[in-house]
Amino acid sequence: MAWNTNVLVGQSGGPTAAINASLAGVFDTARDLGAHVLGMRYGIEGFLAGRIVYLDRTLGDPMDIELLRRTPASFLGSCRFKLPEPEEDPAFFEDAFAKFEDAHVGAVLYIGGNDSMDTIDKLGRWADAHGSDVRLIGIPKTIDNDLVGTDHTPGFGSAAKFIATTMREIERDSSVYDLKSVTFVEIMGRDAGWLAGSACLAGALGNPCPDLVLLPEVTLNQEALLDRISLLLARKNTVVVAVSEGVRHRDGTLLCEAAAEAADGTRLDAFGHVASLSGTGRYLASVTRAALGCKTRAIELSTLQRCASHVASATDLAEAYALGGAGVLAAQDGKTSVMTAIKRIFDKPYLYDTTLTPIADVANKARKVPREFIAPDGMGVTAAFDRYARPLIEGEVSSTYQGGVPHHIKALEADRS
Amino acid sequence: MAWNTNVLVGQSGGPTAAINASLAGVFDTARDLGAHVLGMRYGIEGFLAGRIVYLDRTLGDPMDIELLRRTPASFLGSCRFKLPEPEEDPAFFEDAFAKFEDAHVGAVLYIGGNDSMDTIDKLGRWADAHGSDVRLIGIPKTIDNDLVGTDHTPGFGSAAKFIATTMREIERDSSVYDLKSVTFVEIMGRDAGWLAGSACLAGALGNPCPDLVLLPEVTLNQEALLDRISLLLARKNTVVVAVSEGVRHRDGTLLCEAAAEAADGTRLDAFGHVASLSGTGRYLASVTRAALGCKTRAIELSTLQRCASHVASATDLAEAYALGGAGVLAAQDGKTSVMTAIKRIFDKPYLYDTTLTPIADVANKARKVPREFIAPDGMGVTAAFDRYARPLIEGEVSSTYQGGVPHHIKALEADRS
Repeated sequence: MAWNTNVLVGQSGGPTAAINASLAGVFDTARDLGAHVLGMRYGIEGFLAGRIVYLDRTLGDPMDIELLRRTPASFLGSCRFKLPEPEEDPAFFEDAFAKFEDAHVGAVLYIGGNDSMDTIDKLGRWADAHGSDVRLIGIPKTIDNDLVGTDHTPGFGSAAKFIATTMREIERDSSVYDLKSVTFVEIMGRDAGWLAGSACLAGALGNPCPDLVLLPEVTLNQEALLDRISLLLARKNTVVVAVSEGVRHRDGTLLCEAAAEAADGTRLDAFGHVASLSGTGRYLASVTRAALGCKTRAIELSTLQRCASHVASATDLAEAYALGGAGVLAAQDGKTSVMTAIKRIFDKPYLYDTTLTPIADVANKARKVPREFIAPDGMGVTAAFDRYARPLIEGEVSSTYQGGVPHHIKALEADRS
Repeated sequence: MAWNTNVLVGQSGGPTAAINASLAGVFDTARDLGAHVLGMRYGIEGFLAGRIVYLDRTLGDPMDIELLRRTPASFLGSCRFKLPEPEEDPAFFEDAFAKFEDAHVGAVLYIGGNDSMDTIDKLGRWADAHGSDVRLIGIPKTIDNDLVGTDHTPGFGSAAKFIATTMREIERDSSVYDLKSVTFVEIMGRDAGWLAGSACLAGALGNPCPDLVLLPEVTLNQEALLDRISLLLARKNTVVVAVSEGVRHRDGTLLCEAAAEAADGTRLDAFGHVASLSGTGRYLASVTRAALGCKTRAIELSTLQRCASHVASATDLAEAYALGGAGVLAAQDGKTSVMTAIKRIFDKPYLYDTTLTPIADVANKARKVPREFIAPDGMGVTAAFDRYARPLIEGEVSSTYQGGVPHHIKALEADRS
């Protein structure tokens, strides 16, 4: 059944390796239904400033879709823009819905994380209260995997695959010399430890890698950590610790905050010295070197975690694409104020279906790593975590290389279009 | 013609993504000739302590060789051990050659960089002076590409491919918001800018990426850099700068040294403030933010540059393997005190041959990026650099994945074997 409308799609919040696969899913499905697809340049903020990308033209070639799926970051551009409450600023919403009408928009699909779902929630509440039939659909996206209402979020699997792959390589690199050393690998995730826990996917049964994992869900017990490292060093040369950037001291300060304050001279480190390095990993490397006298080093995986599409998870990209398409089908079916979501059917062999979750149940909530996924001593994850996360990193994407580097879709001009 | 001897092989210095491919080449070629292959556990230092790996057993399965080629870091372990001068410590060399004789070693192949070639040079000088017929062969290896006597070094191509791939992904990640930002990506290479220059392989004709490259061969002109960044920001949102960790101020101090001193409170930064961050990239991010008021960030590629075998260059691994095999053939042919080397035949299509270079011409020398490869303004590389480096990153390796992560050869036990 042909759908004679315009579909408006936007990307919001931090970029990932999978967010463009969701855009590809939205575009392909909408086009199949006969709809036209408009893109928000730089999210809802850009759209409201009149910046629209005509995707029917921009993605005219079927190969564009293949490249788009393999291109990291947000093809349309992104924003970090918090909408006002509908009750407090009706003029804002009148303007937005007038712009939807001007562009003949029957459905708005917004690909993003927590804040993006808040945007859809507010637009949906306004539409509901004012009788608009514009359908408002959220498509989940975040490497942090902290959205509720879905088994997991697109972007997480690819980030986890990069982290696990890199962790395995770092462990080999750390082991080449015949001396005692401790390596701290700092991983993203300020409030939830899904990504740090994923480092453990580098390990195999009976051969854990990394040796320890520190999650933001567990307050740091520095003495217990140093004791554990000492015990490990007594029987092996190389200890590798994955540490979330969000780990906190008992007093609630982030390790990296404490380290930064130390470097500013406003605070001394645990040993009464001004730390010369900041960062959670650097802080722990410095403390461990001082306490145990062994070689230490700190590695930050940094931005690469969210943009390393050259080692994206095929499962992740397929799910991201499916959730984009499912959002269009839901809108055509008259659904609104919902987020598309993954419903896991089985762990192994991994099977899933897409489903819909009321957006009000999702917005402004965060999902942490549950206790049963965390080792009793708080310094690792359990087999249940592995069973949950392993399928999400499986499968490799055949990148298209040109001149020895991955080929991506041509970027949009940064200038006003 | 069968070669009835034992071949002793070692790996030394920093690990790379290609050093195990050279080990595979040595092993395969020696076995084909009928020789037995002994490995030095932890380099010459471990060997002299009696630590030998019997590779005929350890690498008994043909699949082992395939996995070895795809495994990063030094399978045999490594050391950083400087031999004494033969004239100053004859006892050391008597001991070493007695151990070679005990193990029926007819040839020693040592895979490494500058210091490793110094080891082969000294052993060769002793053998020459004392009539030993043990053949001493160097196999080049270093991501830094700073060895003389060879067109380039194995390990460089894979590191450059990771850097260029990542740089392209970082550039996409940096461009998602509609605001001005400058990203500094810190790249290895303390004395030579081959790796930092390789960042430019991310760019395509007419679309340079990164925008600027700072090499250790060029002293930083901070005012000129800030002026260039300002000009770039006037016409585009996102500026990405690749910077070698080895870049120095006019007074000869490393940028990262200056930053570390600032953080220690012993030195103020250019703006009279104590810097709270160290590292070359962090230093420049801090200076740029202070001077231009825009968003800045710093990313360190760190250890991943030398161990990211999941995105290794097929050309690099093939050359590493060939140079290992060529070393065995040279030894069988009676050559000694030589390093195997790459002789480039043609740029495009890329063709090469292996050759031999006298080890005395190699040891303790370093090769910098020549002037004609550096842009006139000192903030980029030329088309000649691209022509030189591009072929070395071409071709992808089909990794073997298990559970979503690359599968590597089983590591040797760290305990004394």
